[in-house]
Amino acid sequence: MNVSIINIGDELLIGQVVNTNASTMSKMLIAAGMNVKETIVISDDHDAIITSLTRCLDSSDAVLITGGLGPTKDDITKKVLCEFFDSHLVENQEALNNVKRIFAARGYELTPINRQQAWVPECCTMINNVLGTAPCMWFEHNGKVVVSMPGVPFEMENLMRTEVVARLQKNFATGRIINKNILIQGIGESFLSDLIEQWELALPDTIRLAYLPQAGMVKLRLTERIADSQPSSIDSLLPSLYALAGKYIVGEDCETLPELVHKKLTASGKTLATAESCTGGTIASKITAFSGASAYFKGGIVAYSNEVKESVLGVRKETLKAYGAVSEETVREMAEGVRKSLNTDYAIATTGIAGPTGGTLDKPVGTVWIAVAGPNGIETRLKKFGDDRLRTIERTCNEAFAMLISNITK
Amino acid sequence: MNVSIINIGDELLIGQVVNTNASTMSKMLIAAGMNVKETIVISDDHDAIITSLTRCLDSSDAVLITGGLGPTKDDITKKVLCEFFDSHLVENQEALNNVKRIFAARGYELTPINRQQAWVPECCTMINNVLGTAPCMWFEHNGKVVVSMPGVPFEMENLMRTEVVARLQKNFATGRIINKNILIQGIGESFLSDLIEQWELALPDTIRLAYLPQAGMVKLRLTERIADSQPSSIDSLLPSLYALAGKYIVGEDCETLPELVHKKLTASGKTLATAESCTGGTIASKITAFSGASAYFKGGIVAYSNEVKESVLGVRKETLKAYGAVSEETVREMAEGVRKSLNTDYAIATTGIAGPTGGTLDKPVGTVWIAVAGPNGIETRLKKFGDDRLRTIERTCNEAFAMLISNITK
Repeated sequence: MNVSIINIGDELLIGQVVNTNASTMSKMLIAAGMNVKETIVISDDHDAIITSLTRCLDSSDAVLITGGLGPTKDDITKKVLCEFFDSHLVENQEALNNVKRIFAARGYELTPINRQQAWVPECCTMINNVLGTAPCMWFEHNGKVVVSMPGVPFEMENLMRTEVVARLQKNFATGRIINKNILIQGIGESFLSDLIEQWELALPDTIRLAYLPQAGMVKLRLTERIADSQPSSIDSLLPSLYALAGKYIVGEDCETLPELVHKKLTASGKTLATAESCTGGTIASKITAFSGASAYFKGGIVAYSNEVKESVLGVRKETLKAYGAVSEETVREMAEGVRKSLNTDYAIATTGIAGPTGGTLDKPVGTVWIAVAGPNGIETRLKKFGDDRLRTIERTCNEAFAMLISNITK
Repeated sequence: MNVSIINIGDELLIGQVVNTNASTMSKMLIAAGMNVKETIVISDDHDAIITSLTRCLDSSDAVLITGGLGPTKDDITKKVLCEFFDSHLVENQEALNNVKRIFAARGYELTPINRQQAWVPECCTMINNVLGTAPCMWFEHNGKVVVSMPGVPFEMENLMRTEVVARLQKNFATGRIINKNILIQGIGESFLSDLIEQWELALPDTIRLAYLPQAGMVKLRLTERIADSQPSSIDSLLPSLYALAGKYIVGEDCETLPELVHKKLTASGKTLATAESCTGGTIASKITAFSGASAYFKGGIVAYSNEVKESVLGVRKETLKAYGAVSEETVREMAEGVRKSLNTDYAIATTGIAGPTGGTLDKPVGTVWIAVAGPNGIETRLKKFGDDRLRTIERTCNEAFAMLISNITK
């Protein structure tokens, strides 16, 4: 079963908002055994919507549309769908009750423009959007399905999770798709490819392998498409992969290294603190994005100035003077300092020159020191990450997470 | 001049990687006066590439392609382009020198699979990619242009910035597009729309208005398309907008509130510290993403546990006991504590229940206290943000940034 996704919105097309909806929707569809044929971003434009919808209905069994359902004048999706399906707008009582409930809860008065949110094409099935005022609309057309959802990410995600995916599965007979992620760190994509070439060549035809490089690491993804009754063969292929590349494999079944850190620390009952200079709070932010992080993450210090390194982390003035803020000695004292003062099992520290300015001959932009302190002692690592600021921050985070995972696993 | 963008990659299509390339490219094309017709994501699949390229060449003057140029077997873009343009691969000396240089710099041996990166279709113009091994390829075809770039974001961005956009501008005569952003906080999208309805209706035909809601704020974007010689009329439209909605306008000409904070603090010479509980380092991380933040940002404390609130920030045990960690009294002591101990002009503090667990009847999930302390005293604010964890974190950040901006502007 093929699905195409059309994300409507000038803000997406001109690049002011990154389109996260496509990836969120794709992940959910793939996990439910459907095939995503293409995802398209177009303008809030009558002709673009009609043309893309016509074409996607030709090549796919279902077309999922997001966006253009707001109360403001630039949003035209509902009007265009009415025209496409030769229908007209009618007020939907359930949708109206929902709009009224939302306005009442916020203590706002219901204006005529907001009341129009409850009007939907007569030919569609209205699916209630409990998180917002724009209803979800389900159309059936010559055995195919068109679904229109709001573009607000959390509203769309809730509709997909609670209604749309299950209705699609029921409407079309779908098989299973199995995905397996393997997180690899410490080897570049092409060297990894050389290392596991024979294993890759021997993979069965039902399985696809993808190399997904992230900042400073590679995620391998195995994808298998099978019938509902058929068992997966992925697990039987892993021992030979480990035999070739085991020393670079950090973990499985996670999307990212912080997710793996979260799982391992949650399971171990050990605690963590951070002392960040060049990563500026990004490590703490990635950790605390997970619900439940408070069980193991006590806190962190963003020591962006030398003053804070000294006064809060207890890095010695002599160390800073003799070796500088970006040095093994300093990063070591940062990790030890935060581990001691926050009284945790593990501590991560980073210090470096994220750039693009601030480099010297000795310590060019991209020079980073990382330390991980734990019950088994402290490990430090020097990296040279190049001159892209945000990339250096991302790579430093991933290097630190990989060091921490290996320290926990020891 | 119309441009279509094709981003190739299974990892994008199945949603494992969010497609930031489309928005990055669109922004640069729009700023250079080109029109982005659509952006498409497709699989590393022969037929999908041929079909999409054929179709986009029909409707656009230029087609920009990213992805599928890696050395691994799942990458097939170069082979398919060879077939599409009826050409064959030849080794390009400049590209080979670049590959050799990159491997030498990293101290790696050049393997045969990496050497193949220097092979390009004979009919194309090779544009050297100094940041990576996959060359950029420029094809001309019946007066239209096809450009193939690597999918690695920073490599693509560098090629676009240094070569591709300028070559497109030279190849096609392009007009100007003027964008004006206005950041608005403290009023919802539909109420804003009602408030400025008459102003919006009176906008000239050459100008489009878009409402771009972000977490807890709305960005208004005015877009004007004019000939190279024509003056912009946008500035003359602003006074009447300010007359209607001035009290909600936080700033202009920025994409985000942290960008505005960065500009204002850089200009003022004042310093900032943060004390974050529920935002877990995200405020610090958003600030330190900007190069030059070290001039005003001294550091921050991520006080995820009560221990850290007491020991590092100096929140009194009695305050925590009497009012709890999520209270006006605690957030006030957090802001004052970090402002004092880090010796800064301004301080932001946050404490709340990000959820989805941890709520109580009194303080449901989404309850957040924010404080901004500065030379003019301290302001605190209570918000109820609902039960989506990451959204609550984002909204808390934006609320805090808006409070800080208003405090600085006072």
